[in-house]
Amino acid sequence: MDKMQKKDYRVEKDSIGAKDVPEGVYYGVQSLRAAENFHITGLNMHPEIINSLAYIKKAAAMTNCEIGTLDKRRADAIIEACGEILKGRFRADFIVDPIQGGAGTSLNMNANEVIANRAIEILGGQKGNYVLVNPNDHVNCGQSTNDVIPTAGKMTSLRLLKKLKTELLRLHKALSDKAREFDHVIKMGRTQMQDAVPIRLGQEFRAYASAIMRDIRRMDKAMEEMRVLNMGGTAIGTGINADESYLQRIVPNLSKVSNMDFEQAADLIDATQNLDPFVAVSGAIKACAVTLSKIANDLRLMSSGPRTGFGEIVLPAKQNGSSIMPGKVNPVIPEVVNQVAFNIIGNDVTITMAAEAGQLELNAFEPIIFYCMFQSIDTLAYAVQTFVDNCITGIIANEKRCRELVENSVGIITAISPHVGYQKAADIAKEAVKTGESVRALILRDKLLNETELDLILDTMNMTKPGIAGSGTL
Amino acid sequence: MDKMQKKDYRVEKDSIGAKDVPEGVYYGVQSLRAAENFHITGLNMHPEIINSLAYIKKAAAMTNCEIGTLDKRRADAIIEACGEILKGRFRADFIVDPIQGGAGTSLNMNANEVIANRAIEILGGQKGNYVLVNPNDHVNCGQSTNDVIPTAGKMTSLRLLKKLKTELLRLHKALSDKAREFDHVIKMGRTQMQDAVPIRLGQEFRAYASAIMRDIRRMDKAMEEMRVLNMGGTAIGTGINADESYLQRIVPNLSKVSNMDFEQAADLIDATQNLDPFVAVSGAIKACAVTLSKIANDLRLMSSGPRTGFGEIVLPAKQNGSSIMPGKVNPVIPEVVNQVAFNIIGNDVTITMAAEAGQLELNAFEPIIFYCMFQSIDTLAYAVQTFVDNCITGIIANEKRCRELVENSVGIITAISPHVGYQKAADIAKEAVKTGESVRALILRDKLLNETELDLILDTMNMTKPGIAGSGTL
Amino acid sequence: MDKMQKKDYRVEKDSIGAKDVPEGVYYGVQSLRAAENFHITGLNMHPEIINSLAYIKKAAAMTNCEIGTLDKRRADAIIEACGEILKGRFRADFIVDPIQGGAGTSLNMNANEVIANRAIEILGGQKGNYVLVNPNDHVNCGQSTNDVIPTAGKMTSLRLLKKLKTELLRLHKALSDKAREFDHVIKMGRTQMQDAVPIRLGQEFRAYASAIMRDIRRMDKAMEEMRVLNMGGTAIGTGINADESYLQRIVPNLSKVSNMDFEQAADLIDATQNLDPFVAVSGAIKACAVTLSKIANDLRLMSSGPRTGFGEIVLPAKQNGSSIMPGKVNPVIPEVVNQVAFNIIGNDVTITMAAEAGQLELNAFEPIIFYCMFQSIDTLAYAVQTFVDNCITGIIANEKRCRELVENSVGIITAISPHVGYQKAADIAKEAVKTGESVRALILRDKLLNETELDLILDTMNMTKPGIAGSGTL
Amino acid sequence: MDKMQKKDYRVEKDSIGAKDVPEGVYYGVQSLRAAENFHITGLNMHPEIINSLAYIKKAAAMTNCEIGTLDKRRADAIIEACGEILKGRFRADFIVDPIQGGAGTSLNMNANEVIANRAIEILGGQKGNYVLVNPNDHVNCGQSTNDVIPTAGKMTSLRLLKKLKTELLRLHKALSDKAREFDHVIKMGRTQMQDAVPIRLGQEFRAYASAIMRDIRRMDKAMEEMRVLNMGGTAIGTGINADESYLQRIVPNLSKVSNMDFEQAADLIDATQNLDPFVAVSGAIKACAVTLSKIANDLRLMSSGPRTGFGEIVLPAKQNGSSIMPGKVNPVIPEVVNQVAFNIIGNDVTITMAAEAGQLELNAFEPIIFYCMFQSIDTLAYAVQTFVDNCITGIIANEKRCRELVENSVGIITAISPHVGYQKAADIAKEAVKTGESVRALILRDKLLNETELDLILDTMNMTKPGIAGSGTL
Repeated sequence: MDKMQKKDYRVEKDSIGAKDVPEGVYYGVQSLRAAENFHITGLNMHPEIINSLAYIKKAAAMTNCEIGTLDKRRADAIIEACGEILKGRFRADFIVDPIQGGAGTSLNMNANEVIANRAIEILGGQKGNYVLVNPNDHVNCGQSTNDVIPTAGKMTSLRLLKKLKTELLRLHKALSDKAREFDHVIKMGRTQMQDAVPIRLGQEFRAYASAIMRDIRRMDKAMEEMRVLNMGGTAIGTGINADESYLQRIVPNLSKVSNMDFEQAADLIDATQNLDPFVAVSGAIKACAVTLSKIANDLRLMSSGPRTGFGEIVLPAKQNGSSIMPGKVNPVIPEVVNQVAFNIIGNDVTITMAAEAGQLELNAFEPIIFYCMFQSIDTLAYAVQTFVDNCITGIIANEKRCRELVENSVGIITAISPHVGYQKAADIAKEAVKTGESVRALILRDKLLNETELDLILDTMNMTKPGIAGSGTL
Repeated sequence: MDKMQKKDYRVEKDSIGAKDVPEGVYYGVQSLRAAENFHITGLNMHPEIINSLAYIKKAAAMTNCEIGTLDKRRADAIIEACGEILKGRFRADFIVDPIQGGAGTSLNMNANEVIANRAIEILGGQKGNYVLVNPNDHVNCGQSTNDVIPTAGKMTSLRLLKKLKTELLRLHKALSDKAREFDHVIKMGRTQMQDAVPIRLGQEFRAYASAIMRDIRRMDKAMEEMRVLNMGGTAIGTGINADESYLQRIVPNLSKVSNMDFEQAADLIDATQNLDPFVAVSGAIKACAVTLSKIANDLRLMSSGPRTGFGEIVLPAKQNGSSIMPGKVNPVIPEVVNQVAFNIIGNDVTITMAAEAGQLELNAFEPIIFYCMFQSIDTLAYAVQTFVDNCITGIIANEKRCRELVENSVGIITAISPHVGYQKAADIAKEAVKTGESVRALILRDKLLNETELDLILDTMNMTKPGIAGSGTL
Repeated sequence: MDKMQKKDYRVEKDSIGAKDVPEGVYYGVQSLRAAENFHITGLNMHPEIINSLAYIKKAAAMTNCEIGTLDKRRADAIIEACGEILKGRFRADFIVDPIQGGAGTSLNMNANEVIANRAIEILGGQKGNYVLVNPNDHVNCGQSTNDVIPTAGKMTSLRLLKKLKTELLRLHKALSDKAREFDHVIKMGRTQMQDAVPIRLGQEFRAYASAIMRDIRRMDKAMEEMRVLNMGGTAIGTGINADESYLQRIVPNLSKVSNMDFEQAADLIDATQNLDPFVAVSGAIKACAVTLSKIANDLRLMSSGPRTGFGEIVLPAKQNGSSIMPGKVNPVIPEVVNQVAFNIIGNDVTITMAAEAGQLELNAFEPIIFYCMFQSIDTLAYAVQTFVDNCITGIIANEKRCRELVENSVGIITAISPHVGYQKAADIAKEAVKTGESVRALILRDKLLNETELDLILDTMNMTKPGIAGSGTL
Repeated sequence: MDKMQKKDYRVEKDSIGAKDVPEGVYYGVQSLRAAENFHITGLNMHPEIINSLAYIKKAAAMTNCEIGTLDKRRADAIIEACGEILKGRFRADFIVDPIQGGAGTSLNMNANEVIANRAIEILGGQKGNYVLVNPNDHVNCGQSTNDVIPTAGKMTSLRLLKKLKTELLRLHKALSDKAREFDHVIKMGRTQMQDAVPIRLGQEFRAYASAIMRDIRRMDKAMEEMRVLNMGGTAIGTGINADESYLQRIVPNLSKVSNMDFEQAADLIDATQNLDPFVAVSGAIKACAVTLSKIANDLRLMSSGPRTGFGEIVLPAKQNGSSIMPGKVNPVIPEVVNQVAFNIIGNDVTITMAAEAGQLELNAFEPIIFYCMFQSIDTLAYAVQTFVDNCITGIIANEKRCRELVENSVGIITAISPHVGYQKAADIAKEAVKTGESVRALILRDKLLNETELDLILDTMNMTKPGIAGSGTL
């Protein structure tokens, strides 16, 4: 350090005092302080929230220029700088930790400083010469962390949710394809892990597809919650220091520059202090995680074996399953889906607590909400992707095994029940389980029904459809 | 026990064996076994789920009679028995614990047995003479626990949610009334517990009302999830043993007898095995709990004092606050709202885990889901009720205190910032905090603005509205 | 109401005002206000916390009498009243809801009022004549809700935990007995639901017993946290209004009257404001719930069938499993264990949030913590009880099925691996799974090992013990 | 890709098939498949778990060499390779995602492959020539993922917990220092956000220190749970393929090479399948997070202001608090502590669910447990570090404000209560609050006590200590 010459640094000053900032960097004194205060995860901000900030700062500069609170020269430089960020530049200059105190002021100022310094350069100035373009007075003009950061969080969530939806639609298609492929595979249905009545494997996959479609629709509704922004509310939603015409134009302009569809909250004070929309969206993601985890559990059950389990389906072998047990193949893809689901459920608790902890005009805990929310959406999208590509599409039915299990089962007694009464049927079932004899043989022995009647009633394909088997004929 | 004569009991028999059932009771052997197996909470089933079961059994009897699978005499007796239950009779005969193994079979059979025995009586028979009316073959005809119980859970949730909505609408009105009443009360806004910029107390209450209205709308959407039933799916959603015409009529008939509005799920297999709709509804309730807890927290902050806290509002004194500290009055109503919210957030985790744990054709964990769901909705409704009646409507503003705090504050510097620049404004603020001098005095001392300009800019009412203070004039 | 004559009521007065109290009751005006303010669950206080309060009030009266702050006549009357409560009297006079605002002041005052009124009677007075015995000045002498209520919560938890421990010890014994009974039953071990290597059923039950013993030890440590009381700290832990000699004697006296073993916290201020010990205890209970739920899951897996599942064990049939499927028997007891576990995990979140929400000198959210804590402990104890009596002790091994599955399995290849190398073993396993041939046949075909060697290596009993099979001999 | 010449790759083969592996890398085909299957977080494994694996593989090679199951040449090469990894080499070759399916087999094989290839090089061979050193047969000799990975998770947790403990001890010291510094600062104590009775700021900080010390002790006990390893249990805890002498030596050897203190589980089957120790440790961390979050909340309350809040303490200004409000300084460090606490509480739910989801002989969900556990411990340690350095040590008391608030308060009535009775005291307090008059003046007006008596009783320093004020004298 002491060998480094003073000229490698520029001195910047804020209300806390003066501080050396490395010469080459675009961030400034406030970013640097934040990076020093918060070394929590050691990770970087999500790239998409940096994009969201660039869109916001661009829209604000445009709007301020339109209404005359920012001169065209500065506005153009800011807009150009934002465009460069959107192309992926200056990412290393976003140095603040995703988990940070201060309701995101650090992140907002990091963006303001990077954009200001780049705009200064564009205008031919030296980084740090904030007279040319000031991070607060010009880049942040008409804004506050308290409207910028919730807006950035919603914009980012929306774009990530869109990707998730794409993956869920692919999953829906893959499950629907399997539903058709397996529509003829009759197998035993189980309730509470006990033999119930026959079902078709295709029906099971159709049910998975139906559940996923319900999740997609729920996600659509949840996304609507993310479209309502508090931009223009500034510090506490009252709009202090935001010109009325800015207030009217900023959200439409933001929709335009980002090519997204937003509306301004009717009550900006409410929209500034309350983060329940994130709780609601996390709730929808969690419901989806529950559905996926249940499907993953089922696949692990149905593929259990190969010899000592259910053995009804075979999952594609994607990697060796064991370092000690040769030839073992494990359901690793469903297992990762389960784990992502567990993580999302935990994240939902974190998001809930953070949202509950808001006080008065602001919730200061947005950073952890965003960190967990983005992680939940991203990991779910990746998990669904690998679920589709490395598991669902490659599932093979073990038709022979499925058929044998049905034929061997006692559960078919349910179809006979309407013809002999529940109690008699129960006695037969009990005897069958105890002695190992077939239900059919016992029914015949007791002359409860004859062969023809049994053939009609015990048609397994019919048993997978509504109706009292044989009711029309017998 | 040995003194009790044998005639005090009737003997009933099921697949497990024979068992003495007390003579006078309407429940039967299966209920009794369940009550012995599950002594978990010691509580009774929620009265509303008993009502739901009565509606279902009534609708099923009607439908079975219409399509000819049940004779009119039995159907009428069953329908009459259900009607009596709906009037509140036989409640003591519902003896199973709300937390029970078996996906609700115990509860369903408890209902089947009570109804069968009462119907037997109506038909002139002796309790236990199940040839007259059989719990399984007649009362449960065309049904399975696996469609009856999820349906009962959804019906019950829906009716309880309706009550909750009524309370939330009352809360919305009470908050809106206060918003109007306090619209002129200027006070200091705070972000991150630090002085920010002025706001009106009425704006704060308006924001609370806005947040509650968003919760109500979310609840409306969630309720839609509860309207989709799997009645007719029977054991695993394939509709085995349910006549096709029964399947088409049961849900419309259920809507009719209950005067509620239901639809049958498009995929009954999915609707039988997946409980994600309860996760989604619990998520919406949780989001509402978060909003309410945040409001309760704010009220506790703003009423802190009376002398050493914020002291901006006074909550109605509802009871002595301390057994040792005379004259102490505590914010007990907001505190109970917080506690109910915490409980709902925990219940949401339970519901989520139980929903995730479903396997294959059924989720066996409905009882705990319903137990937590009903508790969440009920306690929230009661908490909102006491919140409205014993807190919100009686809140008084301490206008004098509110005004003094604004006048004394440094936060008004924000309005000056657009006129002197962020950095200069920050220097002034820092000096004011340090020396205790007023912002106004320092601005005048440094000749940054004159008295007239300051009067314009520092109009506190204007500061609570959008716009750059004084921008039109200066 | 207007028909009711005035003499049916007595008038009581507190700082809020005057209020009619029904003549016959032992509770007073403060209890009544609380009951009106908080109609949240509609339930009563846990009987054991009423006992705890009686112990505390008794110990306080004794102590105050010893040090001269309470005259012997009043002290004796209070002590007698407490004794009556401990015998189960006056329970209907504890009218406050378990979920209540105010950090338990309502509950403490309910106890103070009931005891005062009963003591007044004992002294020959009329209920409500608080000059004789005053709820605050005499019954609550030297105390505050803020030391009484946390103390009562800890005392109650401790007694309930003791009962839970008794049940867990019974479970440990039942599992250990089964471990011995099943020690010779060789079955296939499974990892990730896939066939792994042989294990003995007895080893599995031994592992369950080991896990339960670890939970019991953890519970023992957790219980220590409940022994540290803040009695004597009064309002905020500083001990204001508590005589120093009272402070020294109260905890030993409480230990004596309750026959329990307590110590006074070294830092009473800390012990008054922090409820992390409840979080820690709830965490230990939750860990136990996790163990139990895992065991329940395993039993449901191993008993799956009877024909189309694992079918390795048979659980005792405790009740009919289905209202539609005759003869179906379900694992209802393990299922209720799962549900109780899910509820405990949710309660842990509630307890955590409530503990986190404490502010400054007190945590006002004890009521919800106690409500959830007592429910977690009670329901777990009952669930373990039914688990032992209605499930574990009656489990039967399906030895034949277990043996067949091992003999049929590919997993035994692991024992061969050290002799032929992992890669070669993997190739054999893959071929066996694909063709359905036995591992033994393929090894012989490829002349990798001979019959004698294979007999040695594939001794299934040896495979369930440490060691490289055949390493000593081959 | 097509431009890349074939020689840039080596071909490796496993049971799934052949695959190109980039020539220069140390990982092999199994790592590569895993990296392709699991792109979930995009993050790397925690460096400390890589260290743990290197210790384990080193200890295993030593042990295998000692007992003769591995030749010295290979053992030495493996040990050398492990040593290099411990020096930080080859980190880029650990390519698997922390969230992965398969119970950590991917991570274990990643370590096995990197070590094998490096050992091959050391022995003069070419990477991929696994005849020289085989990842499974030699590096993994005597081991299974199922004992290696839980062991690695516990070792890693233990080392991270040690760092956390160091930070907590620093926090305890910082709080204790402040307790001494502020011991004379009399301020108002508050319960339920309402004025209670006086306390000294030093007593509050002492209470924080006491709570942290309890957390440290709890952490110590939790750490003991991490010392019990299942090394030697191999695949399912039965020790298959592990020589008995290996089994006896591996844990002592691991203790030696890692310079840590471990013991082998008495029941290796239990220790292989159950992850409740992680639930218990996470529970202890969570309890600590609760304590810290409560302290952070208190500091944010006490520092609220500067003008319109409590204003009792001043936190060090670490960065500008607002992008729009000049001069605003926010409690950013406590806020980050809160957020880390919320995240830990959510992680605890994830860990709990994952532990509950274990099935039969193994819990396949270790990766998510470790991911969350390491994150909880690491972020907590960093949060505590910045809490100490950037907040606690720089806190300044606003003595003047503290004193004024006490003198102005009504809460001092509590000290008067024993002398005039609770009800009379309550009346005085009520009047004081209503009229704004001082308690002292009203007592004198009503001649309840005289000036001398009041001086004695209202000595604020005495009020912060046990005892009935003035009881000895009056």
